[in-house]
Amino acid sequence: MTGEFDLIARIKQQAGAVNAPGLLLGIGDDAAIIQLPADEQMVISTDSMNVGVHFLPSDRAADIGHKIIAVNLSDLAAMAATPRWLLLNLTLPAEWSADRRADWVEELLTGMAALLHEHKLQLIGGDTSSGPLALTITALGSVPAAAAVLRSGARVGDHVLVSGSIGDAAAALQLSRQQLAVDPRLLQRLQRPLPRVQLGLRLRTLASAMIDISDGLLADLQHMLVASGVGAEIHTERLPQSSALQAAAMPADQKLACMLSGGDDYELCCCVPEQQLQLAMDAAAQFGIALTDIGSITAGTQLRCVDAQGQVLTADKQGWEHFAA
Amino acid sequence: MTGEFDLIARIKQQAGAVNAPGLLLGIGDDAAIIQLPADEQMVISTDSMNVGVHFLPSDRAADIGHKIIAVNLSDLAAMAATPRWLLLNLTLPAEWSADRRADWVEELLTGMAALLHEHKLQLIGGDTSSGPLALTITALGSVPAAAAVLRSGARVGDHVLVSGSIGDAAAALQLSRQQLAVDPRLLQRLQRPLPRVQLGLRLRTLASAMIDISDGLLADLQHMLVASGVGAEIHTERLPQSSALQAAAMPADQKLACMLSGGDDYELCCCVPEQQLQLAMDAAAQFGIALTDIGSITAGTQLRCVDAQGQVLTADKQGWEHFAA
Repeated sequence: MTGEFDLIARIKQQAGAVNAPGLLLGIGDDAAIIQLPADEQMVISTDSMNVGVHFLPSDRAADIGHKIIAVNLSDLAAMAATPRWLLLNLTLPAEWSADRRADWVEELLTGMAALLHEHKLQLIGGDTSSGPLALTITALGSVPAAAAVLRSGARVGDHVLVSGSIGDAAAALQLSRQQLAVDPRLLQRLQRPLPRVQLGLRLRTLASAMIDISDGLLADLQHMLVASGVGAEIHTERLPQSSALQAAAMPADQKLACMLSGGDDYELCCCVPEQQLQLAMDAAAQFGIALTDIGSITAGTQLRCVDAQGQVLTADKQGWEHFAA
Repeated sequence: MTGEFDLIARIKQQAGAVNAPGLLLGIGDDAAIIQLPADEQMVISTDSMNVGVHFLPSDRAADIGHKIIAVNLSDLAAMAATPRWLLLNLTLPAEWSADRRADWVEELLTGMAALLHEHKLQLIGGDTSSGPLALTITALGSVPAAAAVLRSGARVGDHVLVSGSIGDAAAALQLSRQQLAVDPRLLQRLQRPLPRVQLGLRLRTLASAMIDISDGLLADLQHMLVASGVGAEIHTERLPQSSALQAAAMPADQKLACMLSGGDDYELCCCVPEQQLQLAMDAAAQFGIALTDIGSITAGTQLRCVDAQGQVLTADKQGWEHFAA
């Protein structure tokens, strides 16, 4: 595309802001070259965001930039991996002028900068093309050999823990769509989610299984249960609800639906054996992050959800649709 | 998106068709995990293709699938890397029915199958989303430590070599756009390019610098010259022209423009020192691939292009625009 080389030069300039070990060749050749220490394994995740689906044409490029990095780091966090490198595929509308393209990329990179800097990440490659506005980020991280926390390790009796609070992002989205006032704290969760990278790393030796909550607690927990061949019982009254969600002008059942089925919070859901529970709680407390025990892993394959009135809802993969907002 | 899990299941099934070493965790968790031997480095490239830009809505999914794999493998070939793993980001129109999505993905995977099988590649991750039809492939490969062939190694006196023949894909595109008859051999080059993976690997110890021809010979050679801090003189009458291009109903100067500035051929352009020239020629002959000496690396930074009449065209990065079709 016209102006591709200038954009790449600008991205390369941003990419050079940090310098982590292991990068042998970054942006500017046919491919990047990286190398991990012999006792480490590479962990790779990728996510795309498209205009009109994951963001609106009117959304700020800085928010989009932050969010697509956060979404990918959250996947690595859920593996207990250290994020290291990023690839960026950027599709910009052909009808945009060179100036508009440059401004948008500038704002995108500004929005990415905080997470890149905090986690010492480098942009090592990617491409730019013309088309409807879209981005793909591929995140590469590392774990010591065989130390990644998979979805498949949950065992009967494990506690099911959730970090932070859930439902905020979904509540912000619903209130926005209804054109109601949205608490800035809720909006922040939707637009600028914070991936739980440090907590994920700390849980590496404590959690038996882990997943990040991107599709909603029930959907993602269900993925973990299927992978592990177990069931779970969770208690709705224990779900961690933020004070912002508590204060939101929204019926209680709608708030509950946000917590159970709302995606985009990017909290961690993990399983921790009884003997590791206190260590996990202490670790989270050290980071100032709530870690809430919402239930336990059970024999069988059912995900049972017990509400505050003691009512048991039995669910399968499809059955949670009635919670969907 | 609705039906995402079925599509992923189908992709996972295809991905399981081959089993290369080093893959520790494939599709189905938050991220994939891979590990290379301690003495190998990871080489990574990524390319997106968007409807209306890189392909037409009417193009066959099988052709698109083949081509996006080929484009990425060509980048790894130009590094002299062995391709190993792929990530696929797939964006499908929200208005497509589940059946149409499934059929399209099925055909896409069918189109990818030949290159995946030939090079023992595994699809290890990716994502699916809704939006205008688009694909991103990220290709991961390996090279022995410090063995990759970069763009920056060209030295004065090196021969400039080009594999196969160039200009075919651009000629096919131009004839198609003019709604003229297109020789199937030219169309094949546009729709089903063959990345020079084996040749790239064989040139690892012979070439001082290498790039694949995706943007056009002059543009890509210029990238290599800039990276190496050298110039080059090439001879237009030596450019490898296929018999199909020779036979095409197209003025000679337009054919020359296709060879100099036409992209999408995915041949290799490399620099080889005099003492390695015969070895490189022999290696290509063993694979049945032409390798043509089109000129040499010179001092300075100019790319000089000498035509059949002995006329010298002096060019800088912008100056080749007049060759553009």
